[in-house]
Amino acid sequence: MRITIIGSGNVATHMAAAFKNAGHRIVQVYSPNMHNAALLAYHVGAAAIDEISNIDPNTDIFIIAIKDDAIAQTAEALASYQKLIVHTSGSTGIDVLLTHTNKAGVLYPLQTFSKIREVDFATVPLCIEAANDNIYADLEQLATTVSNNIYSINSSGRRILHLAAVFACNFPNYLYGVAQQLLTDHELDFNLLRPLILETAQKVQQQSPVAVQTGPAVRNDQTTMDEHLQMLVNKPQLQDIYALLSQGIIKNNNGEPGDK
Amino acid sequence: MRITIIGSGNVATHMAAAFKNAGHRIVQVYSPNMHNAALLAYHVGAAAIDEISNIDPNTDIFIIAIKDDAIAQTAEALASYQKLIVHTSGSTGIDVLLTHTNKAGVLYPLQTFSKIREVDFATVPLCIEAANDNIYADLEQLATTVSNNIYSINSSGRRILHLAAVFACNFPNYLYGVAQQLLTDHELDFNLLRPLILETAQKVQQQSPVAVQTGPAVRNDQTTMDEHLQMLVNKPQLQDIYALLSQGIIKNNNGEPGDK
Repeated sequence: MRITIIGSGNVATHMAAAFKNAGHRIVQVYSPNMHNAALLAYHVGAAAIDEISNIDPNTDIFIIAIKDDAIAQTAEALASYQKLIVHTSGSTGIDVLLTHTNKAGVLYPLQTFSKIREVDFATVPLCIEAANDNIYADLEQLATTVSNNIYSINSSGRRILHLAAVFACNFPNYLYGVAQQLLTDHELDFNLLRPLILETAQKVQQQSPVAVQTGPAVRNDQTTMDEHLQMLVNKPQLQDIYALLSQGIIKNNNGEPGDK
Repeated sequence: MRITIIGSGNVATHMAAAFKNAGHRIVQVYSPNMHNAALLAYHVGAAAIDEISNIDPNTDIFIIAIKDDAIAQTAEALASYQKLIVHTSGSTGIDVLLTHTNKAGVLYPLQTFSKIREVDFATVPLCIEAANDNIYADLEQLATTVSNNIYSINSSGRRILHLAAVFACNFPNYLYGVAQQLLTDHELDFNLLRPLILETAQKVQQQSPVAVQTGPAVRNDQTTMDEHLQMLVNKPQLQDIYALLSQGIIKNNNGEPGDK
């Protein structure tokens, strides 16, 4: 397919590269920042533009991967080309596109992307929604060329997924940072924790998280929890986080002893 | 070495297996529950006992892997055999052993163990503390036979490590469970999130967590955060967790935009 990428951030970058590698033609990359547009366009053999008025109409699909609150107005600007328009946002409904065109869809890649890190796109769950069955079929065909994990998810399901992803990815990553800071404060090496972090994530690839919960809270080990809260006495925000998450674990397990 | 394992829980099980596989002889496994003692003893070719008075004195080291609050009295009961005694607890000082013997040490494996899952022990960081340099050398030699990650960590460092491990492992796992529950409530498949969870942990194997933070909070995307809080309106505890962790991310990044 001929694909036009609207955006130059992490999602735009990884999707453009995945489609390019799958043999599609990236026609243009748009960004209001020409430097960013040019950088990504160079990598995927496309032309760079920084004005929507310079859109090349010889394309099959516009993939909008920009900030959520800019999607609606961008879709409006692109609607006149009468091409398929999809966005890539977890927390945005398909309706912001449908207001402007009936050739609308969503391709939501459920993964955490950073420009500094390669991702094996074949493993990335791609969640598809479409204005009608024909568009769904087209998007599914396109998605299959880059990913082995295709799901049909509507806007309300996508919203739940996005919220769940915050709990499953953004918050754990924040807690990794808290742990790193605790170690750094005491001149301990973060490498000590890296195998633990990886194993914790690997464990739930087959198991259910509740079944493999470990630590003082699941053992209802009040002595250790009190000691930990005492160690955080100068970090009230971390004390609050410690207490709240421990309460959640205890509640999940009704205080029954679990794995150590 | 001839090793006696005191305990039959997850840590005892994984350490006994690792030492056995490395060619050491597991002399006995003690547990107050004979069934548990017998089960582990069978797996590592040892004898099972359920009374300390049945200890075989022909051993080189007692490895105590039991609940923290039982370590002191167990060490007292073992001291008369005049053998090296180590415990495996992150949150317990070496002093609870030194009260009873000067042949004391700590072997703290910094990993999350569940009986239902194999662990590659060679990657497990083993933190050593010892009453003197000779004992340290002995423990280091023993540790080297099962792990490639040996660290010298004293009791106060170990306490910090254990606290940090709660943030890096126990709390993220709890949040995985929250995410799973959110999906289950809406009949969505947890498999959708598994690649995200794994990638999030893999990212920080090389990178620093703060450098790869993604999500609405690091973008200071107040609209999405408000929507998410609204979606959790019937789960006040999750609202609190969402707000608190988002505040932490925003504070870390001073509201500067990050990766998406």
